[in-house]
Amino acid sequence: MAAELRKDLVRDTWVVIATDRALKPNDFPINKGWEKAKVSGQQVCPFCEGNESYTTDEIAAFRAGNTLPDTPGWTVRTIPNKFSAFKLEGELELKRTGIFQSCNGLGQHEVVVETPQHGVEFSQLPVERIKQIYLMLQQRYRQLATDRRIKYIQIYKNRGLFAGASLEHSHSQILALPEVPSENQGLSRYYEQEGQCLLCKILEEEMQSRQRLIYESRHFLLVCPYASRFSYETWVIPRRHTEHFADINEEELDDLAAVMKTFMPVMLDCLGDPSYNMVINTAPVNQDIGGGYHWYMEIVPRLIVAAGVEFATGFYMNPVAPEIAAAMLREKLPR
Amino acid sequence: MAAELRKDLVRDTWVVIATDRALKPNDFPINKGWEKAKVSGQQVCPFCEGNESYTTDEIAAFRAGNTLPDTPGWTVRTIPNKFSAFKLEGELELKRTGIFQSCNGLGQHEVVVETPQHGVEFSQLPVERIKQIYLMLQQRYRQLATDRRIKYIQIYKNRGLFAGASLEHSHSQILALPEVPSENQGLSRYYEQEGQCLLCKILEEEMQSRQRLIYESRHFLLVCPYASRFSYETWVIPRRHTEHFADINEEELDDLAAVMKTFMPVMLDCLGDPSYNMVINTAPVNQDIGGGYHWYMEIVPRLIVAAGVEFATGFYMNPVAPEIAAAMLREKLPR
Repeated sequence: MAAELRKDLVRDTWVVIATDRALKPNDFPINKGWEKAKVSGQQVCPFCEGNESYTTDEIAAFRAGNTLPDTPGWTVRTIPNKFSAFKLEGELELKRTGIFQSCNGLGQHEVVVETPQHGVEFSQLPVERIKQIYLMLQQRYRQLATDRRIKYIQIYKNRGLFAGASLEHSHSQILALPEVPSENQGLSRYYEQEGQCLLCKILEEEMQSRQRLIYESRHFLLVCPYASRFSYETWVIPRRHTEHFADINEEELDDLAAVMKTFMPVMLDCLGDPSYNMVINTAPVNQDIGGGYHWYMEIVPRLIVAAGVEFATGFYMNPVAPEIAAAMLREKLPR
Repeated sequence: MAAELRKDLVRDTWVVIATDRALKPNDFPINKGWEKAKVSGQQVCPFCEGNESYTTDEIAAFRAGNTLPDTPGWTVRTIPNKFSAFKLEGELELKRTGIFQSCNGLGQHEVVVETPQHGVEFSQLPVERIKQIYLMLQQRYRQLATDRRIKYIQIYKNRGLFAGASLEHSHSQILALPEVPSENQGLSRYYEQEGQCLLCKILEEEMQSRQRLIYESRHFLLVCPYASRFSYETWVIPRRHTEHFADINEEELDDLAAVMKTFMPVMLDCLGDPSYNMVINTAPVNQDIGGGYHWYMEIVPRLIVAAGVEFATGFYMNPVAPEIAAAMLREKLPR
């Protein structure tokens, strides 16, 4: 698939456009109808063990010692995103046509298949398998960061139709970009203005007030953020000021896996098994960065569809106060 | 409902938070299940003719001469949004708690019921009734703009579950805000940098290339914008450089109604009757504004659910090139 990044001159951001084909109206998951959209329309799930030939070029996998790439025997497997708009080829080139600006889709888009088994959710995996997923994400992060053309690495997970998932089999995605999205520059902007790390400051205030605290572990704090855009939105913040997700150490990794194994089933149970997204916000790579970056994870249950007012104004409307959301989740978790 | 605006320090924007209650998981339309969510869960539709007592304080209506407010006999009716987080009382007050900032929900949120009949869609209304809706929106816009505390007026419509609608009966909404959202400052920023109106420039280029042109009328151009965030996204741009939506004249209003009556049924038919949003982007009020504001309407079919990557990075992924989208829609429209 050929693609380009086009500049949105009104909003001063980039849009990724597929230039050589168009999804027909009936190709959209939403138009396939609710029940059909819950699973992929495909007869064969390309992410299942045994179907490795439906994907190409295994990039990395944790697998039994005597098994070959692109064969069964793996627990976590990374492959290229088949519908990727990005290619890690050549250099970034800006093109102008009249007032319009575009650049080539330089980058890489990968899928991390989290389990060989269809129907097993991230939250149902044993804690050591959750740890393996984070190990894989770290390994890919480090590898992609060695390419100087990559400036930002976005890790995210879409689970369920209302979170934008197009395949049911549990997976995460890694998108390596040639530009730092402006959405990710808030922490460094705060540091420039205030001379301190916003996340460290938030940790301090949330520990003190305890109003929005959901759960504390040795290395992480879970809070519903003060200005939650989404109802029951949860941030997982490492206590140690760490810029990059890949800088997390072994002990922290064990703790993170345990925290997720504790929190996710409770959250899903409390909220009626909603669709959700998980995104990891981290520092840019291959450039001088200002201070104030502190990686953290956002877990966003998708209970509300963003409406006209949200994307017109950028003001999100949240009908659940984070203090109430945090109290509800906290109550169901072990102390 | 009490509410406040809370500052999102990471993204430098505002979030509207209901502070005194929380939607329970089962209150969310999504959790009610697909079929149930298609209509409101309520037995009585408060927007139907005859049910005026279920809403309060009719703000304005076009009605038969001998009928009283809050009784049957109207064609378009404006009422307060029952779940409004905003009140037009007092002055805007910024509050600080530690690093966190909030302000009171100063503003007004109104609902314009577009037809007394349940099940009749905007696109099915006769052209003179569509014109009446725009007349009502203009009238409310002008009235709200007389309050010096109001700085921006956002008009929008959510139709269908995937567009964030919570009631099925056809309606639009007006949200009068005490701050200008940063999303709406792109045109004036472009004018400062380039010394010209971005929309006038876009009109010129789109007329010339014709690649993304959908439809032309005497006073409006319909295009799929160059950096479309959403598949089949359509902009309705007035040819005349007009800052405010309310500045549209009678002849333009007639033309706009006719354009919508021509375009909307074709778009809905082409795309399999999707959920959609319509938003009107217009100039701020009650302040000195820079040049470059030029009102326009965005019509956004909601075929794709914004996923983790979109709200983490702000980069939208669009699998349909606007050139292909425009060609498909253009073909079905009269010349």
